[in-house]
Amino acid sequence: MEFSSKLIEKAVNEMSQLPGIGKRTALRLVLHLLKQPKEQTTFLSQALLNMREDIKFCENCYNISDEKICEICINSSRNQRTICVVEDIRDVMAIENTGQYKGIYHVLGGKISPIEGVGPGQLNITALTEKVKLGKVDEIIFALSSTMEGDTTNFYIYKQISDSKIIISTIARGISVGDELEYADEVTLGRSILHRVPFEKTFKNN
Amino acid sequence: MEFSSKLIEKAVNEMSQLPGIGKRTALRLVLHLLKQPKEQTTFLSQALLNMREDIKFCENCYNISDEKICEICINSSRNQRTICVVEDIRDVMAIENTGQYKGIYHVLGGKISPIEGVGPGQLNITALTEKVKLGKVDEIIFALSSTMEGDTTNFYIYKQISDSKIIISTIARGISVGDELEYADEVTLGRSILHRVPFEKTFKNN
Repeated sequence: MEFSSKLIEKAVNEMSQLPGIGKRTALRLVLHLLKQPKEQTTFLSQALLNMREDIKFCENCYNISDEKICEICINSSRNQRTICVVEDIRDVMAIENTGQYKGIYHVLGGKISPIEGVGPGQLNITALTEKVKLGKVDEIIFALSSTMEGDTTNFYIYKQISDSKIIISTIARGISVGDELEYADEVTLGRSILHRVPFEKTFKNN
Repeated sequence: MEFSSKLIEKAVNEMSQLPGIGKRTALRLVLHLLKQPKEQTTFLSQALLNMREDIKFCENCYNISDEKICEICINSSRNQRTICVVEDIRDVMAIENTGQYKGIYHVLGGKISPIEGVGPGQLNITALTEKVKLGKVDEIIFALSSTMEGDTTNFYIYKQISDSKIIISTIARGISVGDELEYADEVTLGRSILHRVPFEKTFKNN
């Protein structure tokens, strides 16, 4: 792509470094900013800079936070001895949206993935196993995605804490609520049958 | 969407003001920036700020440019008396990529669109009609998109310059090179037949 302006070219090049944004989309976005008042670009740039510069990670659970300890960890009405292990902040947001979970989280910051060069050392795993060893935990719930990488990460953590006497569980997999059986894949449907739950549980409060 | 950090929330809100970027995509982009080195965010913000602050529009054709007069207008080997009327810089880039056009451009900056509140006054139309009236032009080529808005804009400009004795043409519409006739829409195919060209033209140099 040839640009009539070096300034545009640079902005497009930087913008297209973002995942899922190609050169054409980047150009569209940059031209949009040009048509808007200058303030919009200033606000956007400033918000990104501030975010990158001042963001903190909760010292307890590694969730993104504005304070040293995040709002979830500091909330005394939550069960501090039940820990849900997730990959990143989006998973925390997804689970929080359900309103069904009253424990705290532990954000790993990724999954073990040899292909992408992510080893256990780059994830916040030691802090988790430390908590277990210090007897601060009653239950660990694995909520990583059920991919090869997710399963590997689950198993790696499991091996480190399996000799402690805490409950280690994983979120239930099965057919989505509202889905038709005939369109479900076999593995999911198989798990749904294997891990069937007492019917009473589905209408009684847990 | 509830965020655990005001900084993230602000960045996501600003990011999702861009066209085609919803809150979820914005969050994905922002989290990506968080995982990358700080420099990437700095470079991106700086490039956007510089672009918005220092960008110039060519005083002759209103194309985006780093100088007062753009590279195309200043190029003396191009025919300065043939003007191709386009909507924005992307159209200039598209036509330049063909390597088939040796005249200059006139960038309107949009199309007349009452629905979006864009009237002729907001577009660079007067400068174009002035050039025609001053006898600086031999041919005007309309290259706006063939939508209701594009046709309206073409016609509006045409009415202003139709009493001058210049050539007023519009780019050819028809079946794309390589397309199959049976899948083409009727209007396009109809235009292809109506505006058929001498066969010799297709293999001789124009």
